[in-house]
Amino acid sequence: MSEQYLQSLGQQAKQASFALANLSSAQKSALLSAIAASLTAAADEIVAANEQDVAAAKAAGLTQAMIDRLLLNHQRLAGVIADIDNVIGLPDPIGREFDSRLLDNGMRLCRRAVPLGVIGVIYEARPNVTVDIAVLALKTGNAVILRGGKETLNSNLALAKAIRSAIVECGLPADAVQLIDNPDRTLVTGLLKLDQYVDMIVPRGGDKLQRLCAEQATIPVILGGIGICHLYVDKAADLTRSTDVIINAKVQRPTVCNALDTVLVHEAVAAEYLPLLAAALTAQGVKLVGCEATSKLLPAYEIEAATDESFSTEWLSLTLGIKVVADIEAAISHIRQFSSGHSEAILTDDIAAASHFLNEVNSAAVYLNASTRFTDGGQFGLGAEVAVSTQKLHARGPMGLEALTTYKWLGVGDYTARS
Amino acid sequence: MSEQYLQSLGQQAKQASFALANLSSAQKSALLSAIAASLTAAADEIVAANEQDVAAAKAAGLTQAMIDRLLLNHQRLAGVIADIDNVIGLPDPIGREFDSRLLDNGMRLCRRAVPLGVIGVIYEARPNVTVDIAVLALKTGNAVILRGGKETLNSNLALAKAIRSAIVECGLPADAVQLIDNPDRTLVTGLLKLDQYVDMIVPRGGDKLQRLCAEQATIPVILGGIGICHLYVDKAADLTRSTDVIINAKVQRPTVCNALDTVLVHEAVAAEYLPLLAAALTAQGVKLVGCEATSKLLPAYEIEAATDESFSTEWLSLTLGIKVVADIEAAISHIRQFSSGHSEAILTDDIAAASHFLNEVNSAAVYLNASTRFTDGGQFGLGAEVAVSTQKLHARGPMGLEALTTYKWLGVGDYTARS
Repeated sequence: MSEQYLQSLGQQAKQASFALANLSSAQKSALLSAIAASLTAAADEIVAANEQDVAAAKAAGLTQAMIDRLLLNHQRLAGVIADIDNVIGLPDPIGREFDSRLLDNGMRLCRRAVPLGVIGVIYEARPNVTVDIAVLALKTGNAVILRGGKETLNSNLALAKAIRSAIVECGLPADAVQLIDNPDRTLVTGLLKLDQYVDMIVPRGGDKLQRLCAEQATIPVILGGIGICHLYVDKAADLTRSTDVIINAKVQRPTVCNALDTVLVHEAVAAEYLPLLAAALTAQGVKLVGCEATSKLLPAYEIEAATDESFSTEWLSLTLGIKVVADIEAAISHIRQFSSGHSEAILTDDIAAASHFLNEVNSAAVYLNASTRFTDGGQFGLGAEVAVSTQKLHARGPMGLEALTTYKWLGVGDYTARS
Repeated sequence: MSEQYLQSLGQQAKQASFALANLSSAQKSALLSAIAASLTAAADEIVAANEQDVAAAKAAGLTQAMIDRLLLNHQRLAGVIADIDNVIGLPDPIGREFDSRLLDNGMRLCRRAVPLGVIGVIYEARPNVTVDIAVLALKTGNAVILRGGKETLNSNLALAKAIRSAIVECGLPADAVQLIDNPDRTLVTGLLKLDQYVDMIVPRGGDKLQRLCAEQATIPVILGGIGICHLYVDKAADLTRSTDVIINAKVQRPTVCNALDTVLVHEAVAAEYLPLLAAALTAQGVKLVGCEATSKLLPAYEIEAATDESFSTEWLSLTLGIKVVADIEAAISHIRQFSSGHSEAILTDDIAAASHFLNEVNSAAVYLNASTRFTDGGQFGLGAEVAVSTQKLHARGPMGLEALTTYKWLGVGDYTARS
């Protein structure tokens, strides 16, 4: 039954993807405008559906943070709809030809950017993802299969209904956007094995979901969104200016993946700097988990003892690991051992140390004298963000529209045979 | 035991990859030259080891084709070594910075091409792959874990020994190239799950190996090398010139993945063309598997009845499927249903048909008026070929050196915090 359901879901998505692949940019813009209009027209219905979800979440005793993520009121919905205009304004990556060359046998060869085909996205509480991902997929000529969290099902159903009706209005197949509306969890593992129809899976969720996808998927998966992020304060750092960057990286939005998890401090400046830093951090309500040297240098503070386990933790809260390191090599070693490959930074005024760190640290984003919080599609000027990849194939770091494309090789000959 | 072995293999490879990542192009060229010299010096030893493998293969009753793939005599080894010079001459893709931009907050952002890290390659009979892959991996600053077929183990051990001694001679860690020398098959599935250390798996082998990797790997895998390739003869094709292209695609080297598997012929020209084509093909010893219409139009030939199963077969031999189609849409539908996404071609003099086919057929390589046999790194001018990808993420079609790289984002600020 669920096997059959997924097969038809996949088949319909693949079929729809053929209709999307060669739309012109103007046609795709018209489609996205129609979706914005349809969502606006259905706003009352969508907000009412979301109220049901929120009421159920409250009754189920979900945390306030969860409920806040779930909430889609008129104001938020208007923001989501306004974002569609931004996407319409982005350049269309599809159809561009590049790396063209004339081969010795007279054949003209090039690569042409084309849609991936069908994208599967598995996500959790936020209903805005339903719209964001559908819009980015359609902008790049891809069909999409969405699997949201069960706690947002009513909201997602209302959103998908409005999106699909706009697609049909534009004379395109509704199945360009499909929502799995059955909370059965075996559908997730089933989706991960639908390699005959689905070209890429993007899991947007925590560590458990990422592992499930890595282990179960027979489809290429873009892992990401897990950031154990480090910032190294070199002995040549401007200590006064460093504190602002660290506070920004840790405190501005502690629940996101590019928030800082561990500060590494060169031992030559640790005695001078740690008391200043600790004062600034605790004033912001940050809880410290430090190595032995840290505890010794901060006798006035209550410091939890750091362990390999704590250094392997993505805090997602106002907790920060601190470690005193002998030198830049020790900092790099620590990062290599504990980083999730998301974002790391060095603070220094020493050009040799800066260059060494940027060369040797191989995470998706590496910063000199900047906060790890910048790893974000919007901040990077990509105009949109599908996800943040922490793997190395296909796309790395913030994924913009380009990450939803592939290329095909086109060869034009004159009845040319290989000699 | 095997778990521990794989862990240390992975750890050593990862450690070695750090030493390789920032080598200059000159250092990498010197390393490849040293490998060429070391293989030359060890030629007698390598050929003797290969003779053992060949003798064992003969004793085990392997086919002549298998034994030929296995054979590494002095002449072939010299060819393999000469190819290293070609790779030395290719541009080094590592270190290039691109997409640089100045953000509004003053941060300078760019992407820098960097090695993937550790690449795992699983392959079958040909011992030359051991050298080819090691050289391409090192050229791009990657460490590599090799798992060859058990029938070439002696050859591979001798080759790896020579390669590793050259690496050490250059002051680099031998574990930049490691060969799994234990024929235990659980090591393959173990390797596929070594995601802590291995960044990409490239399976170079048949359908079974590809499926195993898709199903078992927790590491990103590049599937490929399976080609169910189609050529569509449009009603506006130059029929006289078409035959040469079809013969080339089918006959030149029938055992490779870009060889032709199915010819689709527009019904308007089928009655005229099929007898000509069949005569030319059978003169070359090609066996025909045709649809009903084909059989009717070729009463003089013995034609096996085509089925969905035969149309799903990668022949790898002098067998060819033939189907008469109502029009170009039927040809495209057939390709969408049966293609493995490798290479397809249209023969036509009609510009609208040509453009429609190139737009609508979404395989790794799509040709107008050319043989499918061109899908090859050498033919495409990539200078080298790691594998031919039939998936859409990361790399598509012939994979050159670029496919062994990723990028990291580098952000340079002035103690910049996110506002």
